[in-house]
Amino acid sequence: MRMYDIIVKKRDGGELTKQEIGFFIEGYTKGDIPDYQAAALTMAIYFQGMTQEETATLTQAMVDSGETIDLSAIKGHKVDKHSTGGVGDKITFIVGPLVASVGVPVAKMSGRGLGHTGGTLDKLESIKDLEIEMEKDQFIKNVNEHKLAVAGQTGNLAPADKKLYALRDVIGTVDSLPLIAGSIMSKKLASGADSIVLDVKTGSGAFMKTLEDSEALAREMVNIGNNLGRNTVAVISDMNQPLGFEVGNANEIKEAAEILQGKKVEDLRKLSLELASHMAVLAEVFANYEDAYQTLEQNLENGKAFAAFRDFIQAQHGDISMIDDLSRLPSAAHDVEVKTEQDGFVSEIDAELIGVAAMYLGAGRATKDDQINHGVGITLNKKIGDEVKAGEALVVLHSDEEHPDTSIEKVKQAYTICSNKVDAPTLIHKVIK
Amino acid sequence: MRMYDIIVKKRDGGELTKQEIGFFIEGYTKGDIPDYQAAALTMAIYFQGMTQEETATLTQAMVDSGETIDLSAIKGHKVDKHSTGGVGDKITFIVGPLVASVGVPVAKMSGRGLGHTGGTLDKLESIKDLEIEMEKDQFIKNVNEHKLAVAGQTGNLAPADKKLYALRDVIGTVDSLPLIAGSIMSKKLASGADSIVLDVKTGSGAFMKTLEDSEALAREMVNIGNNLGRNTVAVISDMNQPLGFEVGNANEIKEAAEILQGKKVEDLRKLSLELASHMAVLAEVFANYEDAYQTLEQNLENGKAFAAFRDFIQAQHGDISMIDDLSRLPSAAHDVEVKTEQDGFVSEIDAELIGVAAMYLGAGRATKDDQINHGVGITLNKKIGDEVKAGEALVVLHSDEEHPDTSIEKVKQAYTICSNKVDAPTLIHKVIK
Repeated sequence: MRMYDIIVKKRDGGELTKQEIGFFIEGYTKGDIPDYQAAALTMAIYFQGMTQEETATLTQAMVDSGETIDLSAIKGHKVDKHSTGGVGDKITFIVGPLVASVGVPVAKMSGRGLGHTGGTLDKLESIKDLEIEMEKDQFIKNVNEHKLAVAGQTGNLAPADKKLYALRDVIGTVDSLPLIAGSIMSKKLASGADSIVLDVKTGSGAFMKTLEDSEALAREMVNIGNNLGRNTVAVISDMNQPLGFEVGNANEIKEAAEILQGKKVEDLRKLSLELASHMAVLAEVFANYEDAYQTLEQNLENGKAFAAFRDFIQAQHGDISMIDDLSRLPSAAHDVEVKTEQDGFVSEIDAELIGVAAMYLGAGRATKDDQINHGVGITLNKKIGDEVKAGEALVVLHSDEEHPDTSIEKVKQAYTICSNKVDAPTLIHKVIK
Repeated sequence: MRMYDIIVKKRDGGELTKQEIGFFIEGYTKGDIPDYQAAALTMAIYFQGMTQEETATLTQAMVDSGETIDLSAIKGHKVDKHSTGGVGDKITFIVGPLVASVGVPVAKMSGRGLGHTGGTLDKLESIKDLEIEMEKDQFIKNVNEHKLAVAGQTGNLAPADKKLYALRDVIGTVDSLPLIAGSIMSKKLASGADSIVLDVKTGSGAFMKTLEDSEALAREMVNIGNNLGRNTVAVISDMNQPLGFEVGNANEIKEAAEILQGKKVEDLRKLSLELASHMAVLAEVFANYEDAYQTLEQNLENGKAFAAFRDFIQAQHGDISMIDDLSRLPSAAHDVEVKTEQDGFVSEIDAELIGVAAMYLGAGRATKDDQINHGVGITLNKKIGDEVKAGEALVVLHSDEEHPDTSIEKVKQAYTICSNKVDAPTLIHKVIK
């Protein structure tokens, strides 16, 4: 078999066989196939696409290129949740305890990465002493006892994806639907869950800006999961503005804890219940969505969800006093209001710019060596559809600097105020099974 | 400027600017831009194409990547001829002396390369003592005095094309029209001619199999030439069978010499006169094609064309006795007939297989170190449209082996005989200016 023939076949619109895809992924991972041939193939895939079967085969080959995590020692049906990424997305901290409260085991492995705010692990580390590095046995024991554990990702998962993604990133072939879907799913599948719920974001603050593109990505991922024996459900949710009111690290933990105690932050609560309900059904704890939703909603009110959260924090040695009194979580030196000069209605909030504003405060990492400042962040006072009066604060910046001018500037750019009434965006656009 | 942005622009169907193309070619030649980014860009060009202006700009950038040959010391308007390559193509040895006989200066620089038969230089070296390595001053002196000189190509012409072609060859992006056209034309333009006549082959034995593709390539090359200030004419000629009756090295020189002495080998003579007429008009020696054709045809009859050939051979110290008595050219030990077992008409001759048969006799080079055997070759007795009787020889193999079985086999495969009368293929399909 020659890589040249595989490239030409795909260039001409052919369907690659399992052997051909395997030859490519194995050879590329080992370094036998050079970057320039992989570059040509991914560009050909960009133009010619891949069938569902090819995409599933590619994903499985990437999973097989490295280690896979064996979660079979965990009792029950393990369900993972994955978000395609947005600003203010603290859903994991809500959904994890919520489904744990009905007995669904959640074994969450996360990375750190670069971003406007910290990743899942960084946000959790807002809680003093919380440990995220643990031996595999301890991790499994925690899941079995508390139904929830979150740990740093170890092991060489899907190295082919890692290498291929780094290449695609510098040659303009990231935006290929089968390649994006395969990349995300290969990591999820290598992480060992039995079923997967995907939160696919759509809108100005998402990787996919249009509903059409988001839906196509969601379908592609659901197909891969189902093809490879994992029940997969995708929820397409709105990311035309940050999720909830808090953007940062400690303040996102605080907001999540409040939701778990029954606070009615509409979008956050609704999306969390939606995702959690699908997870609970996939885990076969409930026969249908409606039953799951009802019980899960009750658990936000009756303290069971919050109790699961406390359990998890304690099991990982986090300072529980910070959870019992959320004001003890890290905070910033200054609260700086950013006011509007106009009367009207908020029509747009560029989530990306809000993220950038948070990063300038110190909430995120621009380079690998940057330190996260857990106490800084942004509280949105106004969201899309809200009426505002000139002089009212749109957001409060939690800053260690007295004059965070760049962040103020970014927030002002992020908000659009117009004179006509605007509706809040639809939160949940579609569910794809 | 970033290579990434250039790739994405082309991927999305954009038109690259002069600066962008220059940045790519310069950076790639220097090694600042890696192969994998060049691979992605050429695949994007494969799918999205290039405008005439982009293609011309790319070609000029490849010319500018290396040396160019300064032929300004040669008096008169220099016209170069280029063929896209076929089997039995000894047109250069006919057209060169022919146009020299009417005063058109031809300064031909050729390579060797791999092939079923030798290249221009190898074929010429069938003539004992003929020198093709010479100093530039001598080369120019020869052209000025005899209107014709042929030398080995020296200098680092269009190194960007060389590097890019080697990459395209292993990633499946050779078959991109603007890239093929740019590749051919960059070498021609770097060679310093004022005008260019292209012989674009079409048919089963050509790089381009269909008239449509050949015409598209011809148009692309003519556009490049004209865009870059070189008058360019392309003749699309048939390559559904070898050209003339001889395939090899010495026997091709012999056939060319016979044409120059007035022998009526229809396809060879006609195509030579066609190409030579366009060259003479471009060189402004004649006002129009008809006048050129008439005089050139006369020069085949009156000995002037052959005299120009003798002059050129003598000026390069070739053994002129071999030209005056063509039977003294190298020959092979055995003449082996390949006979048909069928009555009928020749309907197809796979030129490529005839070439392969010649290579097995020793006429060509499969690897760089192979030695050419100038005496071996193939004489076709029958061409498309000819009637044959069972037991008649289709070809004669000139072989140093007594039983050249592989070549016999290839020749048998190459010929198709059918029972219905077949017309000879049209020789000249189209002229594009």
